[in-house]
Amino acid sequence: MSGSLLFPSRRLRATPFTSRVSALGVAGYTVYNHMLLATVFESLQEDYKHLKEYVQIWDVSVERQVQLLGPDAHKLACMISARDLTNAKVGRCYYAPICDQNGAIINDPIALRLAENKYWFSISDSDLLLWVQGIAIGLGLNVDICEPDVSPLAIQGPFADDLMADVFGEEIREVKFFHFKAFSFRGHMLNIARSGWSKQGGFEIYLDDTNLGEELWDAIWAKGKKYNIRAGCPNLIERVEAGLLSYGNDMNREDTPLEIGLEKYVSLDSEVDFIGKAALQKQRKVGIKKRLMGIEIDGSKMPPLTMPKKVSIEGKNVGMITSAVFSPDYGGNIGFAMIKASNAYVGAEVMVDSEEGPQRGILCEIGDLWAQVQSNR
Amino acid sequence: MSGSLLFPSRRLRATPFTSRVSALGVAGYTVYNHMLLATVFESLQEDYKHLKEYVQIWDVSVERQVQLLGPDAHKLACMISARDLTNAKVGRCYYAPICDQNGAIINDPIALRLAENKYWFSISDSDLLLWVQGIAIGLGLNVDICEPDVSPLAIQGPFADDLMADVFGEEIREVKFFHFKAFSFRGHMLNIARSGWSKQGGFEIYLDDTNLGEELWDAIWAKGKKYNIRAGCPNLIERVEAGLLSYGNDMNREDTPLEIGLEKYVSLDSEVDFIGKAALQKQRKVGIKKRLMGIEIDGSKMPPLTMPKKVSIEGKNVGMITSAVFSPDYGGNIGFAMIKASNAYVGAEVMVDSEEGPQRGILCEIGDLWAQVQSNR
Repeated sequence: MSGSLLFPSRRLRATPFTSRVSALGVAGYTVYNHMLLATVFESLQEDYKHLKEYVQIWDVSVERQVQLLGPDAHKLACMISARDLTNAKVGRCYYAPICDQNGAIINDPIALRLAENKYWFSISDSDLLLWVQGIAIGLGLNVDICEPDVSPLAIQGPFADDLMADVFGEEIREVKFFHFKAFSFRGHMLNIARSGWSKQGGFEIYLDDTNLGEELWDAIWAKGKKYNIRAGCPNLIERVEAGLLSYGNDMNREDTPLEIGLEKYVSLDSEVDFIGKAALQKQRKVGIKKRLMGIEIDGSKMPPLTMPKKVSIEGKNVGMITSAVFSPDYGGNIGFAMIKASNAYVGAEVMVDSEEGPQRGILCEIGDLWAQVQSNR
Repeated sequence: MSGSLLFPSRRLRATPFTSRVSALGVAGYTVYNHMLLATVFESLQEDYKHLKEYVQIWDVSVERQVQLLGPDAHKLACMISARDLTNAKVGRCYYAPICDQNGAIINDPIALRLAENKYWFSISDSDLLLWVQGIAIGLGLNVDICEPDVSPLAIQGPFADDLMADVFGEEIREVKFFHFKAFSFRGHMLNIARSGWSKQGGFEIYLDDTNLGEELWDAIWAKGKKYNIRAGCPNLIERVEAGLLSYGNDMNREDTPLEIGLEKYVSLDSEVDFIGKAALQKQRKVGIKKRLMGIEIDGSKMPPLTMPKKVSIEGKNVGMITSAVFSPDYGGNIGFAMIKASNAYVGAEVMVDSEEGPQRGILCEIGDLWAQVQSNR
């Protein structure tokens, strides 16, 4: 499948920034929430190197918003979120896994509370809108649910603060991580959060008017020249180094948050009765059967996966690689692996199927990948 | 975007047949229901010509099934389907638009009743599973909902009957249009329907075991050689000629079935109280504001659309093209256009934006495109 062309279709929605992404030489796309998402410009490695040194502008419109508005918005938000949102504060972002009644993850959005009775769930790749609407209809809740005209634009990289201050004023430097605030762009107020799908720091601008898209992009681009700005996108190498999990790759409806290591985002001991809670409490009691781990893999540079690779110990299947890539700063292949719980311990040696035959792998904690990249750098 | 590479990812799921599709020279993919769907092999026009003359094998695994099983399965099916399924027969397929509470289309699946208490909804490109699960949870229904391991494989083209008879026996010729029946493949029973997303006739085999995928493909391929079988896929030219609408292209959550011309699949005068019924009854009463029409467009060969093209009359915007393509048999460009109701009449002359300047277009009924293709052929 590598090297296949993506056939044009209106069904694969363009974004407010597609003309700019296209003009700046996008080399590869994926499809995410029925929409185009750039995956590479110059090359995975060049994009990665630049992201770690300068600043990039990313069209992440695919992070569609599911808007809950009305008297029952808060009640519904608390019901669907495995993370306790009872005391969610206006102006804050919350990573909030959403589970079905079996505790399986159906989306892992960022929840933004915009007002007492207004939320945005900034979603990963599944139609969370349909889930939320279905529940609201079934329960007869008084809440309006829609996908508003909101398209996030991310500014990521070490010079993100300087660039954003040049565009939106010095005050933006004071926005804390996972907080958001409205800033004026040519008289139009835009919610801007300190967040983004990299570990390089930066912001996400929630553009809420498609017609302003090109003007916003161009204004940032003009100010970004002195910081050596480039068009970029979530980078596979950097996100694996950073331990950022991708819905559809590293977790899906086959998995629960406990298996993925998201315990701290799941409020099993809270008062709130969210969907999937009972199933997850039960799983916590009886134990998990598999667990997502970090992994370092020997051998030459691995290409991005299209299919999970088998992981074995002494010929016995113990799991699969969910994401893997060659990290230049680490100087080797790193990734994530879903491993049988009884084999999921740090330091365990495993064998990984690869195009060039079995390769040795060593399991680690996902959170330790970053430190190892830093120490090898 | 034409010419862009599709970047590999496990999130874009492979199918039981991906190895065969890939080996047979797929030239372009799209992503549909988080899964790979071939869009072109040799070329749009060569694929089209072959489909109309011989027989093709299509990997349409992307038609994922939403399975409803249990005491409340029938009740839930009737509740979500805008088409009255009250008397749905086991062994029959029903084209059944699904609407939200505003009457907007969220999916347009084929419903298959497998047993009194068991349905499959063979879906178009949105996560209908989440909608159905959400409603069932909200209402506390006693029904199990899942995406089973089912991947349809279509055999389409004039020689489909002969080929299928060679593989599954003569009895298969007696399966009527939109009926299905179980046939044995090496001892494994497979549901096979006379259906498919072309007007060339054929079948869809609902493979319910991924591990049998390559064996099934290879068996059909071997028997198909004498009919000049090729790997194919839903063909843009043929489906526009045939008036087959594509969810995401020709309809989406902005549209109701009445605007799309699906009145006959919507049971507004039935007893059943489905979601969206009241909104649609109201719309029928006050009238629609826009209507999907067929269109013939002057000028040189149009490439497949990535964005809707504007349609105007005397400089005033009256709608947009949702799909368009050059049809060799018609000898010109044909497509679909969503047009302001007051301008949506057969024979109306409009202007269509195109890369090479405005082109004249003539509106027609969608159902008349096919006849016009035949008479020009």
